[in-house]
Amino acid sequence: MSTVKLVDENSDDPRVRAVFEDIKATKKIDRIPNIWRALASHPEHLELCWTRLKAIMRPGKLDMLTKEIIALAVSATNGCDYCINSHTAAVQKLGLTSEQYGEVLAVIGLYGQMNKLADALQVEPDVRPTPY
Amino acid sequence: MSTVKLVDENSDDPRVRAVFEDIKATKKIDRIPNIWRALASHPEHLELCWTRLKAIMRPGKLDMLTKEIIALAVSATNGCDYCINSHTAAVQKLGLTSEQYGEVLAVIGLYGQMNKLADALQVEPDVRPTPY
Amino acid sequence: MSTVKLVDENSDDPRVRAVFEDIKATKKIDRIPNIWRALASHPEHLELCWTRLKAIMRPGKLDMLTKEIIALAVSATNGCDYCINSHTAAVQKLGLTSEQYGEVLAVIGLYGQMNKLADALQVEPDVRPTPY
Amino acid sequence: MSTVKLVDENSDDPRVRAVFEDIKATKKIDRIPNIWRALASHPEHLELCWTRLKAIMRPGKLDMLTKEIIALAVSATNGCDYCINSHTAAVQKLGLTSEQYGEVLAVIGLYGQMNKLADALQVEPDVRPTPY
Amino acid sequence: MSTVKLVDENSDDPRVRAVFEDIKATKKIDRIPNIWRALASHPEHLELCWTRLKAIMRPGKLDMLTKEIIALAVSATNGCDYCINSHTAAVQKLGLTSEQYGEVLAVIGLYGQMNKLADALQVEPDVRPTPY
Amino acid sequence: MSTVKLVDENSDDPRVRAVFEDIKATKKIDRIPNIWRALASHPEHLELCWTRLKAIMRPGKLDMLTKEIIALAVSATNGCDYCINSHTAAVQKLGLTSEQYGEVLAVIGLYGQMNKLADALQVEPDVRPTPY
Repeated sequence: MSTVKLVDENSDDPRVRAVFEDIKATKKIDRIPNIWRALASHPEHLELCWTRLKAIMRPGKLDMLTKEIIALAVSATNGCDYCINSHTAAVQKLGLTSEQYGEVLAVIGLYGQMNKLADALQVEPDVRPTPY
Repeated sequence: MSTVKLVDENSDDPRVRAVFEDIKATKKIDRIPNIWRALASHPEHLELCWTRLKAIMRPGKLDMLTKEIIALAVSATNGCDYCINSHTAAVQKLGLTSEQYGEVLAVIGLYGQMNKLADALQVEPDVRPTPY
Repeated sequence: MSTVKLVDENSDDPRVRAVFEDIKATKKIDRIPNIWRALASHPEHLELCWTRLKAIMRPGKLDMLTKEIIALAVSATNGCDYCINSHTAAVQKLGLTSEQYGEVLAVIGLYGQMNKLADALQVEPDVRPTPY
Repeated sequence: MSTVKLVDENSDDPRVRAVFEDIKATKKIDRIPNIWRALASHPEHLELCWTRLKAIMRPGKLDMLTKEIIALAVSATNGCDYCINSHTAAVQKLGLTSEQYGEVLAVIGLYGQMNKLADALQVEPDVRPTPY
Repeated sequence: MSTVKLVDENSDDPRVRAVFEDIKATKKIDRIPNIWRALASHPEHLELCWTRLKAIMRPGKLDMLTKEIIALAVSATNGCDYCINSHTAAVQKLGLTSEQYGEVLAVIGLYGQMNKLADALQVEPDVRPTPY
Repeated sequence: MSTVKLVDENSDDPRVRAVFEDIKATKKIDRIPNIWRALASHPEHLELCWTRLKAIMRPGKLDMLTKEIIALAVSATNGCDYCINSHTAAVQKLGLTSEQYGEVLAVIGLYGQMNKLADALQVEPDVRPTPY
């Protein structure tokens, strides 16, 4: 059970309503995902989160599938169940195949390991990359 | 300073030597990165790590750039300095532009935030994805 | 299901009983929270945990609400469900309003993001603070 | 060394310049902290991060000191050095005394411990809080 | 519900079958744990994970109980429920007593705290250990 | 540079002095490690931390080496540099050989990987262990 009451999908609050409409139009979905209904308990924060997510999660110099794969990698590394489910559904919808999904997980697992070994061994950087 | 002595690039140990040669050939590099020289203090573990990394980090159903982007996302989420440097250098070498790099970071940061909000709000999953 | 049997609230063990009585008196509650019943499977550890928590979680130079807000921020960042529930209940009881709770979460989310960006960018410190 | 070139404080880019001016005016500082100069390598992301941080990190239903204490708790739990330094300087500037700082750290440390014990013991929630 | 279909214990895939047989023989168990049935959705990754785990998780210069205790400490620190259950069952089977288990948890909790204090205080290393 | 002034090893504060003497006597060392000198900026917290650590980090039903190995596993998983150095020095002093150290790291790395795979795959527990 979430720590806030989930705001009704048909909320009267104009600020919430505007965001909910935009979520449905942008994502082409009929139902508002629970995370947004929970965030709506604080309308200003809802607005800040949604406008920023919308600006970042659209095709840019990277395609949507790559962006959702990054979201999945971050969520798995953080162990966030809600987000793992949500981004697994997203990559599936965007056409990631079962074999590709297996490779995504293999890379996530691999660096879950290598990161900890590099930390444990206190390895110092090799030559640094040229800064971007 | 690392917690183990970095094994010399010209190690006499045949097991270490074989892995070092394979690293140089596979990655087309002249110097052995420090992480492998550190892992070489336990040759069997070096071998296990390298053969597995080699099997995962080659083009498969996903291209190399996507794999290195995942590695960067995991490393940034774990806050592993050595790995962040190493995978930033790798994506750069594979052609990720400055603008694309900015987008990768924007997505990493975004879900660093959204994951914590979903956890804090104890949001329950929406409809689950169809399992792969 | 917890990995240890939860010790009965009316345990005969004098060490456990003393801590349980103190928990009820200090927190002005009737039931022993599950975490303490689980820790009681190792009475010495129960005692160490409780006496230390009791010494820290009392009004000092900081008020109780600030302390519970910190506890919530740490628990959300760690993604510990039991603790998120427990500290959400605590801040609510201490009078944190819904709007304030929304702001607490906004700050937690914000630095969940900014921390990862600072790590990913390998940003070096500006001028250091004067040590306390 | 950061993974991007730090953008000059006197950047010609109008978008960057506007954010930099706003940072200096809002925070009443003369120098742009390194994190913003690094983010400026991707002006759109800089803008998104700054406008959102500005909206959250101002006195609201919570005072600034409480907000900076939360930022410090999150940063310490994530182990982000840059952010720990930055928020330690901030709480100091806002008047947190040495004794209060000691209490903040005591609470951060305490729940770093209790979170892990609750996870390890797989403790199930007691009665849930009434949702906000 | 897992994000992939759990592969049947009697899978026809020869690669999966070989690993499943080896898991049962090596661990002296009759049922395949869910993690391996999930990984089997990508047979090559299953093989890579199992052969590596098998090579590491056998008595070497450290006994099996010590290895499983390390696995439990890592899993509790990462807050991975599946793994906490699995390694708790393992240490129990290997003879760890209730009192010893209590001590393992006490140490895990203690350094969950001390790690965060050392990070928060930005403590610099004392004299470094002589590298192994 | 630490965020607090390191308290002098010959502090006049009787509370600090008592703890420092006890640290030197208990650990059979001449110099006070930096973490304790930093914690001494808040004498009550110093006392709480030290008395609890002293009670847990002594031979009990588990020997000291096993306890220090757990401390190292937790510290590596948390990526705490100060603590990784400190506990690496400790296991070395207690006789852990280079080969054993390699095995400790192999197990830490392995479960850094397996934990993330179990989370990513949302694997449900097999039969639960009998609670301790």
